[in-house]
Amino acid sequence: MSGEKEAPQVQEASRRETDAPSSKLAVFSGADALELDSGASLSPWQVAYETYGSLNADRSNAVMICHALTGDQYVASTNPITGKPGWWDRMVGPGRPIDTDRYFVICANVLGGCLGTTGPASTDPKTGRPYGLSLPVLTIRDMVRAQAKLIDHLGIETLFAVAGGSMGGMQVLQWAASYPDRVFAAIPIAASARHSSQNIAFHEVGRQAIMADPNWAGGAYIAKNVRPTKGLSVARMAAHITYMSDESLHRKFGRNLQDRDGLTFGFDADFQIESYLRHQGMTFVDRFDANSYLYVTRAMDYFDLAAEFGGSLPAAFTGTTTRFCVMSFTSDWLFPTPESREVVRALNAAAANVSFVEIDSDRGHDAFLLNVPEMFRTIRGFLTGAAKARGIPAPGGSD
Amino acid sequence: MSGEKEAPQVQEASRRETDAPSSKLAVFSGADALELDSGASLSPWQVAYETYGSLNADRSNAVMICHALTGDQYVASTNPITGKPGWWDRMVGPGRPIDTDRYFVICANVLGGCLGTTGPASTDPKTGRPYGLSLPVLTIRDMVRAQAKLIDHLGIETLFAVAGGSMGGMQVLQWAASYPDRVFAAIPIAASARHSSQNIAFHEVGRQAIMADPNWAGGAYIAKNVRPTKGLSVARMAAHITYMSDESLHRKFGRNLQDRDGLTFGFDADFQIESYLRHQGMTFVDRFDANSYLYVTRAMDYFDLAAEFGGSLPAAFTGTTTRFCVMSFTSDWLFPTPESREVVRALNAAAANVSFVEIDSDRGHDAFLLNVPEMFRTIRGFLTGAAKARGIPAPGGSD
Repeated sequence: MSGEKEAPQVQEASRRETDAPSSKLAVFSGADALELDSGASLSPWQVAYETYGSLNADRSNAVMICHALTGDQYVASTNPITGKPGWWDRMVGPGRPIDTDRYFVICANVLGGCLGTTGPASTDPKTGRPYGLSLPVLTIRDMVRAQAKLIDHLGIETLFAVAGGSMGGMQVLQWAASYPDRVFAAIPIAASARHSSQNIAFHEVGRQAIMADPNWAGGAYIAKNVRPTKGLSVARMAAHITYMSDESLHRKFGRNLQDRDGLTFGFDADFQIESYLRHQGMTFVDRFDANSYLYVTRAMDYFDLAAEFGGSLPAAFTGTTTRFCVMSFTSDWLFPTPESREVVRALNAAAANVSFVEIDSDRGHDAFLLNVPEMFRTIRGFLTGAAKARGIPAPGGSD
Repeated sequence: MSGEKEAPQVQEASRRETDAPSSKLAVFSGADALELDSGASLSPWQVAYETYGSLNADRSNAVMICHALTGDQYVASTNPITGKPGWWDRMVGPGRPIDTDRYFVICANVLGGCLGTTGPASTDPKTGRPYGLSLPVLTIRDMVRAQAKLIDHLGIETLFAVAGGSMGGMQVLQWAASYPDRVFAAIPIAASARHSSQNIAFHEVGRQAIMADPNWAGGAYIAKNVRPTKGLSVARMAAHITYMSDESLHRKFGRNLQDRDGLTFGFDADFQIESYLRHQGMTFVDRFDANSYLYVTRAMDYFDLAAEFGGSLPAAFTGTTTRFCVMSFTSDWLFPTPESREVVRALNAAAANVSFVEIDSDRGHDAFLLNVPEMFRTIRGFLTGAAKARGIPAPGGSD
């Protein structure tokens, strides 16, 4: 089990990034207190973010990238804890579909996260100790409110585009619904307007795994200098299965054995899939905070956009002038295509400008993070068209 | 969490049933030592079983029911621990599809189980202490070997039928492959000839959840008078999601709240699905042994019938005279229809007598345990035809 493994240096780096991130940082207080859906108010609070490219003179070329459950602000640059490249560097960069030669890209760590934006691992300025469970429970709308404060701070009135996959796609839909005049184009990928019962169920298993770990200590593990690595690792393993498709698991692992010629008749990782999952669990605990996992999964569970608009999803988009490009993947069983179609139907009912692409892929939910050329082509084309409409010049002067 | 709840009386009953079950019991030793696939040998060992109906004079009407992962021998009678009716009493009983007025039904707790057949919670006669992890790892073939010894003991040469769902269906396939002359008819339901990568993955999550619980104590929890209830509960919660379909979860629970008018902005069970899953976890730990969960899931993971026959599934059934009725359910994503079709293709390649029925149901894998009239009609019809062919008289003298 992962609990056997200790990585004190990595953990120290992780703790440091929580309050004093390597990335850019904006701190808010006073009039900029964050009013939350729970009724609580957060002040001071902070958001850690990265930017790529340059904001043009009329401030019309900003693209907000929203990250998924365990993502971060390092969308196209090295993660300071893992040393790995940006999580979407195939998508974002010079000449990439979200072209930083043309657009000014912003990516912020979500509220409730653990890489510099205020979250449960952050130091509560009132006590000098980590918030833990004393941080109010957060919602997707709270995350987007925080991002809106950030673009105010950056002097940006309207985003050219908002894009993201999975929980990132939920934020995109929330942006379009909450701030219709501030979003020119929206790209929700592999997402849904509400979290399904099955997805809530998988999240609940993960939370119970974390809370079952005695080292979770009622959420106060940082003060006790322990960490619920075993519970968090089990949570990650369960979740990771849902990110892949049955087909891709079969293709990638099948029933192949791990560095052995036959079954061992024991409980070690005989099969490659077991070894792979254990590795996923082990490496995850080095870069992610267990309480953040509770808060961010809870925010996803609570997401139900129609409920904010009297139960009507079309009402969330009434009168919108935003252009939408909705995308799903055939083998994604976590956010299956019918959930994207429901969004598209609501947008059509609201007479919105929407295109919908279901991409053929056997790689499951994680396809949005992978090398899927049709996704790149679709986003490049959609953004190029929208940029022309918005009057953002192409790099080098032509499209 | 379930760990908070103690049910000492239930636990005591559970311990008692392990060595001295309320059901019938057969004890084997000496020449009847059980030779296992691991190379180990088990002696003495025992099998706990129930029977229903009467064996006819020519001993031709015996039906073996094979149970699933967490099932037991109480297929059509009250479980002594939970006090609940038999787990398949809609299927088995007087006048039911598997009609105990006509057939002599046998159901045995599987090897590795915890209700009286030798398993890791059983007392090792050599030490006087529970086996724990010193019990050799077992396979589906070992389970079937034990059942074959049982029917020897009962003086039955050939079973009229073997039937079971899920892991029970794996045993049915193993029976037909290992003992083709002892199985007149075989009914594998919602099963597969080999456990898939995704299913191994889910099992591995469950095992890691159990082993992450400090009360698991390396498998020696009984001696320490503790139990890994939290870990086992998480394992059950994760598994339970896979037994249902996305549709049935949506229909049954959706995003309904549990006894509250609004979100609580906390980590209690706001949603009915959370409360339901927690209940599933909590009640499971009262009736099931954590080490048994490790052993029985491992046996399923190891199951790969073709591998026993040089990699050829048709070779498992060469020359068989058994009649097969293979059944799957449209919404079962744990053992999806293509896995049953693979069995049917192999049986056809072996020129076997096989019929295949895919039953339309939105209830997922658990459909085989539920009130699904088409399943009942199919099994009743198949068995009636087979009984005529075998010359087993109908109750009352006519079909």
